[in-house]
Amino acid sequence: MKLLFALLLSALSISAFAQNDDEKMIRKIFDEALEKGDSYEMLHYLTKQIGGRLSGSPQAAAAVEWSRQQMLSYGFDNVFLQEVMVPHWVRGEKEIGKIVNSKKLGTVDFNVVALGNSVGTGDAGVLGQVIEVKDFQELAQLGRKTIEGKIVFFNRPMDAKLIDTFGAYSGASNQRGSGPSEAAKYGAIGVLVRSLSSFKDDVPHTGSTRYALNIPQIPAIAISTEDADLLSELLADDKELNFYFETHCQMLEDVLSHNVVGEIKGSEFPDEYIVVGGHLDSWDLSEGAHDDGAGCVQSIEVLRLMKTLGYKPKRTIRAVMFMNEENGLRGGTKYAELAAQNKEHHIAALESDRGGFLPIGFGISGDEAEVKKMLSWKSYFEPFGIFQFLTSGGGADIGPLRPLGTPTIGYIPDSQRYFKYHHTPIDNFEMVNQRELEMGAAAMASLVYLIDKYGLK
Amino acid sequence: MKLLFALLLSALSISAFAQNDDEKMIRKIFDEALEKGDSYEMLHYLTKQIGGRLSGSPQAAAAVEWSRQQMLSYGFDNVFLQEVMVPHWVRGEKEIGKIVNSKKLGTVDFNVVALGNSVGTGDAGVLGQVIEVKDFQELAQLGRKTIEGKIVFFNRPMDAKLIDTFGAYSGASNQRGSGPSEAAKYGAIGVLVRSLSSFKDDVPHTGSTRYALNIPQIPAIAISTEDADLLSELLADDKELNFYFETHCQMLEDVLSHNVVGEIKGSEFPDEYIVVGGHLDSWDLSEGAHDDGAGCVQSIEVLRLMKTLGYKPKRTIRAVMFMNEENGLRGGTKYAELAAQNKEHHIAALESDRGGFLPIGFGISGDEAEVKKMLSWKSYFEPFGIFQFLTSGGGADIGPLRPLGTPTIGYIPDSQRYFKYHHTPIDNFEMVNQRELEMGAAAMASLVYLIDKYGLK
Repeated sequence: MKLLFALLLSALSISAFAQNDDEKMIRKIFDEALEKGDSYEMLHYLTKQIGGRLSGSPQAAAAVEWSRQQMLSYGFDNVFLQEVMVPHWVRGEKEIGKIVNSKKLGTVDFNVVALGNSVGTGDAGVLGQVIEVKDFQELAQLGRKTIEGKIVFFNRPMDAKLIDTFGAYSGASNQRGSGPSEAAKYGAIGVLVRSLSSFKDDVPHTGSTRYALNIPQIPAIAISTEDADLLSELLADDKELNFYFETHCQMLEDVLSHNVVGEIKGSEFPDEYIVVGGHLDSWDLSEGAHDDGAGCVQSIEVLRLMKTLGYKPKRTIRAVMFMNEENGLRGGTKYAELAAQNKEHHIAALESDRGGFLPIGFGISGDEAEVKKMLSWKSYFEPFGIFQFLTSGGGADIGPLRPLGTPTIGYIPDSQRYFKYHHTPIDNFEMVNQRELEMGAAAMASLVYLIDKYGLK
Repeated sequence: MKLLFALLLSALSISAFAQNDDEKMIRKIFDEALEKGDSYEMLHYLTKQIGGRLSGSPQAAAAVEWSRQQMLSYGFDNVFLQEVMVPHWVRGEKEIGKIVNSKKLGTVDFNVVALGNSVGTGDAGVLGQVIEVKDFQELAQLGRKTIEGKIVFFNRPMDAKLIDTFGAYSGASNQRGSGPSEAAKYGAIGVLVRSLSSFKDDVPHTGSTRYALNIPQIPAIAISTEDADLLSELLADDKELNFYFETHCQMLEDVLSHNVVGEIKGSEFPDEYIVVGGHLDSWDLSEGAHDDGAGCVQSIEVLRLMKTLGYKPKRTIRAVMFMNEENGLRGGTKYAELAAQNKEHHIAALESDRGGFLPIGFGISGDEAEVKKMLSWKSYFEPFGIFQFLTSGGGADIGPLRPLGTPTIGYIPDSQRYFKYHHTPIDNFEMVNQRELEMGAAAMASLVYLIDKYGLK
């Protein structure tokens, strides 16, 4: 009995000591990130020296080379590229959009942007009567007799009541993603989409649309939330209102591009991989600071923090800069293909693609044991204000790893501000707060450290 | 037994129903604030139409009149002013500061601001050798023989490792508050203070200093964190380095000003008061958007939300716009004096003075029962991302109510960004996010609702 008691005590004290060690390590990670972090400086280079970097652009190639050199400069064990063919969409000359015959206001110029992947109108432009709808059901009810030869205006706002603004985004984003093809089914000649923004302002938000097969591809643009409200108000008693827009965007031939991978080899289980990543491409008209420069530099910073603090991982930790999340997901798809082909065992993948804002949590999609394991670490994060551990999560680029059995984890920062900047020219470096970015990197590094040390099973 | 069981069931279902009602009410408060909130528009007026409003300035008078009219426009039961005499400090002409004889760089112009309440140098300026210290202990060790006739440079940074940046602020702010008098004890002729900022940039932060009695009042300025680092670097091997600065600030005669109070009368306990407030004054050189326009408009919004949602409070709820938090605290002091004099029973006071950022919690200073009661409501707030309920809290303006037995509650938003803007020209409307401001108002209104309905005892 005495022996059992002694054993129990010793087991307890080992576990207490172990926890204490982890708390100390996590504290060290945060201290290093906040006092001597590199993520903000990296983001400065990526946004200000390279800037917008849509797949296939020279800037995307520059971002590939920059992240390769950056990771080499930190002395990671391996830094390599993965070839991937990407779509090459170009915006062309400045877009034009205007109401041409408002009974009340005459001509009204709008600030518009073509949707990514959209066909252009060319010099002829598109001119037509505007039919406003809230969703695809309303569109179907109106049918071909009303829609044919017209411009469809999708005007369903994001739901301001949802605290998680990504939920509000999901609830509205099919207008942009599928709206053009849905409208074309009924003979529409063009599409206007209310910007996917949580705010009322005059900034139009781009973003990709996906044309369905065997349906005519019609040009599509986004208008600002303020202009959408104005247009809707005018349409209420001006059914003959016509809109004109002109875009010169086009889809060119696919281009060779790359994912960029940096890794620190595992000391005990080098064949077990933990991925932490973001996407290197951004929209052309923005610096891509929150989306997703932040996720890229945070991922590199995770490995740098481990190296700087002298932590030797058991497993192989990879920072992956995925290419082409915005308009094709070719990089994420390719990464999973190669992982399967090379029989690499990925025990976890973590993505940061919700902006460089204040860390509030993580969400994991995995089997029961994996979910339970991650949730058991919650208390390590609470001293840093991180309270939300959700039982589903991931990211677009790591999504293709999930069917291979890899648990996917989404880094969750505060979402209130994201859809002010998302896919606009104001998604720039100035809108990123240094401490928030650094705390995010530290939170990610802390989670990767725990996964590396204990596994997720 | 059956009866007991039935009673128990019914008690349970009443309690379940009551909770459900509260959840519904809090959801309604957030919905209204996020969909049709007025706080952002109010803040726009206060910052853009009125702007900086230091105590005693015409703009402070305008802010008094604006908030009076604004609360009247909402039809609150009473809106009234409380007279209070406030200090009247003026900055005068533009400040000048420069290194005059760096061995390495020659003359270097600094962007400087006088500390609030500071005496000016006048046209003669102050010129002297610079002695850098980290704290008052180091200053005392150097003593009169080293300090006399010199300019003391306080250069202790805020601790980047602290997650609560207000803790870091507290750890560094005595340099600004007491540094000038401490330095004058040893014969210093002027003081430079490293700006109280969490970031390295070129923006100097003002803020009040307090001269001790019977010690010569010497002029004091703040320099940016970048300039502080540069100066420190140059001083390391250039002990003869001289600095010159010129300020024209002065303290004028006290001026009559006002707290502004709006109230909704309680239906059951009209003589029990719940205060929700912020301070109306701001520094002269900023729009005072986060500090503390946000707290003011959120407090007015709390009452507006209740009125709009048709909630009839049991207790009397007051929105109080306190005057002169920045450089005297005369408004907060006067409010408590009048409360004591009029024997008003204040059952709780809540202040928002940490910026219009994402709500993360509340802190309460009260007796055990009051603390316990507030903490019991934690789960109502978690769906809105608000997890931190601390057992101490308050605010400068409501502090004087605490000795009267009133529990004081501080509204806690995310603190990572605050000390970038605090007391600078970039504390402007553009740096406030509409959803964050609105969520803060909703969180405050929800807490006031619970306190009103259940009391804190």
